[in-house]
Amino acid sequence: MSSETPRVGEQRPGGRSARVRADVLRATAELLAESGYDGLSIEAVAARARVHKTTVYRRWPTKAELVADTLSARSEEAVPVPDTGSLASDLAALARAVAANIGSDVGAAMTRTLVAASATSTDVAATGAEFWARRLSLTGAIVERAVARGELSSGTDPNLVIETLIGPLYVRVLMTGEPIDAELADRVAALVAAGAAS
Amino acid sequence: MSSETPRVGEQRPGGRSARVRADVLRATAELLAESGYDGLSIEAVAARARVHKTTVYRRWPTKAELVADTLSARSEEAVPVPDTGSLASDLAALARAVAANIGSDVGAAMTRTLVAASATSTDVAATGAEFWARRLSLTGAIVERAVARGELSSGTDPNLVIETLIGPLYVRVLMTGEPIDAELADRVAALVAAGAAS
Repeated sequence: MSSETPRVGEQRPGGRSARVRADVLRATAELLAESGYDGLSIEAVAARARVHKTTVYRRWPTKAELVADTLSARSEEAVPVPDTGSLASDLAALARAVAANIGSDVGAAMTRTLVAASATSTDVAATGAEFWARRLSLTGAIVERAVARGELSSGTDPNLVIETLIGPLYVRVLMTGEPIDAELADRVAALVAAGAAS
Repeated sequence: MSSETPRVGEQRPGGRSARVRADVLRATAELLAESGYDGLSIEAVAARARVHKTTVYRRWPTKAELVADTLSARSEEAVPVPDTGSLASDLAALARAVAANIGSDVGAAMTRTLVAASATSTDVAATGAEFWARRLSLTGAIVERAVARGELSSGTDPNLVIETLIGPLYVRVLMTGEPIDAELADRVAALVAAGAAS
């Protein structure tokens, strides 16, 4: 960024730098959904985002890093970590947000594309594993708060609860192709909340 | 088969025809794990199984059908539907068998390969969806028997219980790359059994 001539708004949070990032990540998400990981190129992302390709390369040296950042940004925006005051409603809110995210056309395509790319690229697999470890750690706060409130026993494994919550939603998107919706998310969340608390 | 000269054992169940099928499906599983779906060819399968390629084409006209049959045969052998007399122990036995199957090197590679191929081939996706519908229907018998025994309420959705049981195991193989073992399978099964019964 230091090699670019500063413009109005350059130094503000939410200024040009943030706009470029948002444009590049949106372009990446669109192209991933359209062409898959193998069909994605930095050049095409730059063209779609209307930025120079060196701008993309400078911030995201590899395609795997670009995709990982896109996935992270999308998840943080689309799937915030709920804090509603109870385990059952936190899990329901999280499951609904995940279902809406990976059940959408773009979300489903991105999810399938990234899992497919992980199967053949150790770089993508490692990037994906890091992304998931971070997401499980963030959303595990739901379980930790429930333990602190006395809703769950202190030995509860946060990862296990979150993996069991999101697992059946990903099974549908990645394997069975069955539809997912908020009603399914609520039923999964009720089952997992009751199971974790028992 | 009718165009081949019958040999000793040809007409017996478990005779030449069954041996050819077993050899071809084993070769397919090995090659899928080694080369992935895109790298798999009927010719290579025939060579590995030591049969003529027309023998393969006659029984499995497309690669997707060959892979689906391989997956079905493997699952039926490696993941039988348990009937131990209680929901908790049936779910634990099923989760352990799934974990052992998809946690093995060949099983994990086949699982990743098929999900990856489903992302880019509607034929494979349709074949996979059929396979999963059949597996869910078969293993759903665990839930139906628990309902009949009065362990679960009559409104329990068999698919939801099985999807929630296997979901976290597939999340690890397909997404996080975290290891799976019998102890994890037991913990998931205990959570899901308690949640379904509550």
